[in-house]
Amino acid sequence: MNFEQVINSLPRQLLAPLPTPIQRLAASEKILDSPVKLYIKRDDLTGVGAGGNKVRSLEYIIGRAKADGCDIIVASGNGQSNLCSLAAACAARAGIKCLIVHNCEKPDTSAGNSILNDLLDVERIYIGDVDSTRREEYMPLVMQVLKDRGQNPYLIRNGATTGCGALGYANAVIEIRDQCRRQNLEIKHIFAPGGNGGIAAGLIYGNAMLGFPFKIHIISVEDDTPTLTKHIETTIAEMRRITALPFDFQVKDCADISDAYRGEGWAINTDQSRQMVKTFARTEGIYIENVYTSKLMVGFEDMVKKGLTGGDALVIHTGGFGSLFSQY
Amino acid sequence: MNFEQVINSLPRQLLAPLPTPIQRLAASEKILDSPVKLYIKRDDLTGVGAGGNKVRSLEYIIGRAKADGCDIIVASGNGQSNLCSLAAACAARAGIKCLIVHNCEKPDTSAGNSILNDLLDVERIYIGDVDSTRREEYMPLVMQVLKDRGQNPYLIRNGATTGCGALGYANAVIEIRDQCRRQNLEIKHIFAPGGNGGIAAGLIYGNAMLGFPFKIHIISVEDDTPTLTKHIETTIAEMRRITALPFDFQVKDCADISDAYRGEGWAINTDQSRQMVKTFARTEGIYIENVYTSKLMVGFEDMVKKGLTGGDALVIHTGGFGSLFSQY
Repeated sequence: MNFEQVINSLPRQLLAPLPTPIQRLAASEKILDSPVKLYIKRDDLTGVGAGGNKVRSLEYIIGRAKADGCDIIVASGNGQSNLCSLAAACAARAGIKCLIVHNCEKPDTSAGNSILNDLLDVERIYIGDVDSTRREEYMPLVMQVLKDRGQNPYLIRNGATTGCGALGYANAVIEIRDQCRRQNLEIKHIFAPGGNGGIAAGLIYGNAMLGFPFKIHIISVEDDTPTLTKHIETTIAEMRRITALPFDFQVKDCADISDAYRGEGWAINTDQSRQMVKTFARTEGIYIENVYTSKLMVGFEDMVKKGLTGGDALVIHTGGFGSLFSQY
Repeated sequence: MNFEQVINSLPRQLLAPLPTPIQRLAASEKILDSPVKLYIKRDDLTGVGAGGNKVRSLEYIIGRAKADGCDIIVASGNGQSNLCSLAAACAARAGIKCLIVHNCEKPDTSAGNSILNDLLDVERIYIGDVDSTRREEYMPLVMQVLKDRGQNPYLIRNGATTGCGALGYANAVIEIRDQCRRQNLEIKHIFAPGGNGGIAAGLIYGNAMLGFPFKIHIISVEDDTPTLTKHIETTIAEMRRITALPFDFQVKDCADISDAYRGEGWAINTDQSRQMVKTFARTEGIYIENVYTSKLMVGFEDMVKKGLTGGDALVIHTGGFGSLFSQY
């Protein structure tokens, strides 16, 4: 079986209205005096819960969970975790239960994602103000409790950045290629943010399996290039075990992974990224946020200005509109 | 010229990634034991600013403004007006200026839509805590001031519910018909909320012009049926003046307009609508809000349960995810 046949044979819970739109960034082209056409992939509009990139991951994670006969998915994160809320909404749509483990005290009043979790009436456990390492140590106990009460739980590891979750962006490469064919787009460059490397791993693996139709650019928003590259390698190794298709490449040869725009790391704005949220809204009428897409856009625009060759460029909007309100 | 030719000849600023998705509501079908297939039209995912139905209206309003040689659009509303923020985001995308007139005092700190307006750096005038009637009386003066400073302003009347704005939903009927053809959907019934009647007028007029491919159901969220019908008639009369195509029908013969689900009126929850925001999230993983879509969904589900014949049913999600956070 080739890559597309393999990925189509894997369990998947359809959740998002796909394909997400590809829109032209005409005003940005003009301002940047871009030699190539610029496009944005609206993965903020994945349409379950608050949307965003992780719906793609959850399609494969929940698909796997159901195929394994699980009846509840378990997500963990801080009290405002986007992943936890999204997992709960996706579980609702998929008709499977969800348990959230929060490393914080139970809040007296709900705000942000906590309101969404209330609406979903998702079961939550609060383990108090401990760090994420301690929270993860607690997870085997949670799994045991669920088994003891007769449930068959599926644990979402590492914020859904797993080999299974990354299949979402491996499949997105097929989706983008098909959109290019149908809409006669000549996209060569795909830009995406790199946090713990889930999107990057999916894109790089999918692109390699398709014979490198695109050039992948990853803008780190957190770690230096060697660290991010290691994360990506780990997740690609997990994907290989799932698909049984070899990946005989060095990650560094398959993508341009830049740490030049991350500043002092995760969720710490740079001067440019702080300004970019405003500039992009004023230019395109599209909101981005401060942790992922703002640094991504700074890198994207800088590399467009420095010159891209061989085809047009697409940047992936990974969502986060909801979190914008807590960032100001 | 036929209707499609006429509407395609009118000025329009493309803003949204259209068509918006049509998704199956499989879980709801099961729960409601629905005899027909149920679908949702994701007009919450119109992708400019915070999204929602009014992006469709603003495509025709900004198109008209530009065709008339205007260089600034003027929107008015309260300090948290969704229309004002959306007009500002759409204007940014269209490359035209925007002025917002708020009938409130200038807030000391920004929240909600006010944060979005800050990001866009849109010009705002605060006329103090007066009612909307007084605010509208103030608008000719605002227009004169803009002319005096050498600008050519376009006033967005009546929260974008005008003949021009309603063209967005007349065109949406064409879009839905085309999606049905392409995706082999057998949709007969279209459900939409009725506030001041803009969406309703567009749908009813467009459906009539196409020879009634659909049956339109309007769920009033505010006024009684005779009052809402009058609003719709007014806007359809404006559309007729723009298109010069006759509408030789009674509105009441062209749509099923129900006031049975509005409770005590605009933004006042009923027991059922309060519950529906939760039920729908828990069933479909999709968030609706309390003013428009919650009452719409109550009406939609009730009428599905009572029985629909002749084809499947589509409900239009008009957006408002952002306002959900201020409703809890």
